[in-house]
Amino acid sequence: MLKGNCIIAQSGGPTSAINASAYGAITEALASSAIQKVYGAKNGILGVLREELFDFEEEDKEELDYFKTTPSSGLGSCRYRLAHAKDDKKDYIRIFEVFKAHNIRYFFYIGGNDSMDTVSKLSAHAKKINYDIRILGIPKTIDNDLMGTDHCPGFGSAAKYIIGSTLECAIDASVYDSNIITIIEVMGRNAGWLAAAAALAKSKRFDVPDLIYLPEYPFSYENFEKDIKKVYSEKGKVLVVVSEGIKDSKGNYIEHMDTQDHDIFGHAQLGGVGSILGEYVKNHIEKRVKVVQLGILQRCAMHFASKTDIEESCYIGKRAVQYAIEGKSGYLVGIKRLANTPYKYDAELFEIEKAANSEHLIPLEWINKEGNFVTKDCIEYIKPLIQGEPDIPMENGVPRYGKLKKKLIPKKCINLNEGRI
Amino acid sequence: MLKGNCIIAQSGGPTSAINASAYGAITEALASSAIQKVYGAKNGILGVLREELFDFEEEDKEELDYFKTTPSSGLGSCRYRLAHAKDDKKDYIRIFEVFKAHNIRYFFYIGGNDSMDTVSKLSAHAKKINYDIRILGIPKTIDNDLMGTDHCPGFGSAAKYIIGSTLECAIDASVYDSNIITIIEVMGRNAGWLAAAAALAKSKRFDVPDLIYLPEYPFSYENFEKDIKKVYSEKGKVLVVVSEGIKDSKGNYIEHMDTQDHDIFGHAQLGGVGSILGEYVKNHIEKRVKVVQLGILQRCAMHFASKTDIEESCYIGKRAVQYAIEGKSGYLVGIKRLANTPYKYDAELFEIEKAANSEHLIPLEWINKEGNFVTKDCIEYIKPLIQGEPDIPMENGVPRYGKLKKKLIPKKCINLNEGRI
Repeated sequence: MLKGNCIIAQSGGPTSAINASAYGAITEALASSAIQKVYGAKNGILGVLREELFDFEEEDKEELDYFKTTPSSGLGSCRYRLAHAKDDKKDYIRIFEVFKAHNIRYFFYIGGNDSMDTVSKLSAHAKKINYDIRILGIPKTIDNDLMGTDHCPGFGSAAKYIIGSTLECAIDASVYDSNIITIIEVMGRNAGWLAAAAALAKSKRFDVPDLIYLPEYPFSYENFEKDIKKVYSEKGKVLVVVSEGIKDSKGNYIEHMDTQDHDIFGHAQLGGVGSILGEYVKNHIEKRVKVVQLGILQRCAMHFASKTDIEESCYIGKRAVQYAIEGKSGYLVGIKRLANTPYKYDAELFEIEKAANSEHLIPLEWINKEGNFVTKDCIEYIKPLIQGEPDIPMENGVPRYGKLKKKLIPKKCINLNEGRI
Repeated sequence: MLKGNCIIAQSGGPTSAINASAYGAITEALASSAIQKVYGAKNGILGVLREELFDFEEEDKEELDYFKTTPSSGLGSCRYRLAHAKDDKKDYIRIFEVFKAHNIRYFFYIGGNDSMDTVSKLSAHAKKINYDIRILGIPKTIDNDLMGTDHCPGFGSAAKYIIGSTLECAIDASVYDSNIITIIEVMGRNAGWLAAAAALAKSKRFDVPDLIYLPEYPFSYENFEKDIKKVYSEKGKVLVVVSEGIKDSKGNYIEHMDTQDHDIFGHAQLGGVGSILGEYVKNHIEKRVKVVQLGILQRCAMHFASKTDIEESCYIGKRAVQYAIEGKSGYLVGIKRLANTPYKYDAELFEIEKAANSEHLIPLEWINKEGNFVTKDCIEYIKPLIQGEPDIPMENGVPRYGKLKKKLIPKKCINLNEGRI
């Protein structure tokens, strides 16, 4: 059994469940005899590069429990991509210097595609330099776009919030007798899972949403106008859910016909397609348009999270630590769906190289032939993931979220070079 | 005891608690021996003008119970203002024709300022034409801007949602080590109560929001820039909550320096000041700005409503029916605060003429001298109103909201003139 210390860190955009995963890993690591010190790195891999580590044993036990149901990356996050080791070794030298100085033998990185890229590169480098360490990726992303896991921790909670909000917006839009077209824009980048989830708002009582537009299916204004006009002529009110990442048949983002903002990973910075479609509707179909941007709340609205998601996320964090102690390294710890009714799942390992930098998109057979809704199979896939509501402790009517002290431990590295940063 | 039938109707912008008030009035009226038939009017006073009435006894009892915790105006709403009877009698002739045809002796109108104007005008007209009827206004508005009630049914739920969302956005904004300025725009028109509520997100763990801008205090870009720069230099992150209705010292809406859209009541149509301030910050202080528009969700997010609000709203609906049976007419049925700790309230009557068309604003002594936050007194006023979470029935992970059939009863009026509409 490999003995030593461990680092747990978070990276990428936050979710409601990312702290639950951290909590699962932290508590499991604290209880393990293989792992001595359980450290957090402040702001992901940046915390390692800067040697900004804190000791979870120093945290108040009660606050750590609150932390489990606290949204967003409580350890601190970053968006930092390691260079390829063959091109630039600065970061690698620094990271393994910090690992050695603190006898780090376990590293758990909770994040999305880009974080899995970091896990992949560090695992490969550790092998190369013969540094004995277990490195595992714990998935999180509201977008549900990670390969190697049936679905992503964090997705179920974001989906549930979107479903509830879609239903509430639809009921709100129904109160007047006048016609109205409501457009709800949701996140998801190139994956339409979050927009697809809105389909679960539909019931025999509330027949909404009417139309869902996904990045996986080429968007055309011609079809959009035809779709809207059809529903509009039948019902007088239309509720549209649109994914921020819809693209035309050439793969150009609708939102981005003019601008070319990209973040440091080369991803397009999205957000705003709802307003663009709203303007189109105003100019071509109906003046009464309401555009709702769910914005960052969809990734942090813990107050309406999925209990299933929070519990799974915590479980995956725990299992990651167990796998590592068993000797596994260089994997993503994914969720395997064992059954749908009743829903059962377990953890499984997935080779990290395959998970990094690839995208899990909605299969085309789960989109209807008109490209404006999802099929029953897609709905059945999402349904178990939004079940239940976690008990969020409340204090004076306000959610009692946890905050860690994150008191940094003394630095040990003599070299103050912090890699490429 | 005046015997006859009753109409219950809703008007104005929806809230999470307006159906709870309707539920209180409906169940009390159904149980009363004075009131025979309990009708709903579809889409407020328009339903009376069009003689579109439905019978609550025809509704499924279970669905009616779900209806209590369903957001938005389930009876249907409208924004219709009666002319002054001295100028145009068409509406009055029609309304009392419908009242007579159905032997309506009780009329309960749930709404905001404009609805209270309708209650006021109809009460006065009934007296004038000696038609024996009891007309009472049941307040609702998320803006909390109605006179004659300590606070408004609907406000507590919207406030709670804003507080939770502000806290979650602040936690989300805190995860990266980079600087960021977040601006959250909330509703409220000329009253800053909803923006003020965000102050309750502040705790010793989460020191946010930093700044709150209210319509009651003249806004200046100069002070705004100074305020932001001060917090920014201390913390590197700033969280601002701004009311849609902020105005400069001359009373011009900041949002509306260029445009002059007004709705049919002459109110300015607001929404968008967050983006305007966001642009200002980008140009003058810091490029990393996130603008969050809580939009219509703040008035319909039943999934995070206040139990106190829902219960009070239901109670006020019940009491309105009791007051009417006791012989009261021409009043708003307000909430009287009896004690703050523990919180106690009761209903009280307020002369409708005084309630209609006036606004209940934040007293200046509840705003700090810098005009960028509220005082402890304001926080203590709001605190009891956001307590508790109602039990929202869930079905497959989605809120089980109720929907009434609203099957129209046969029309009785021979005259088909529908007033001015």
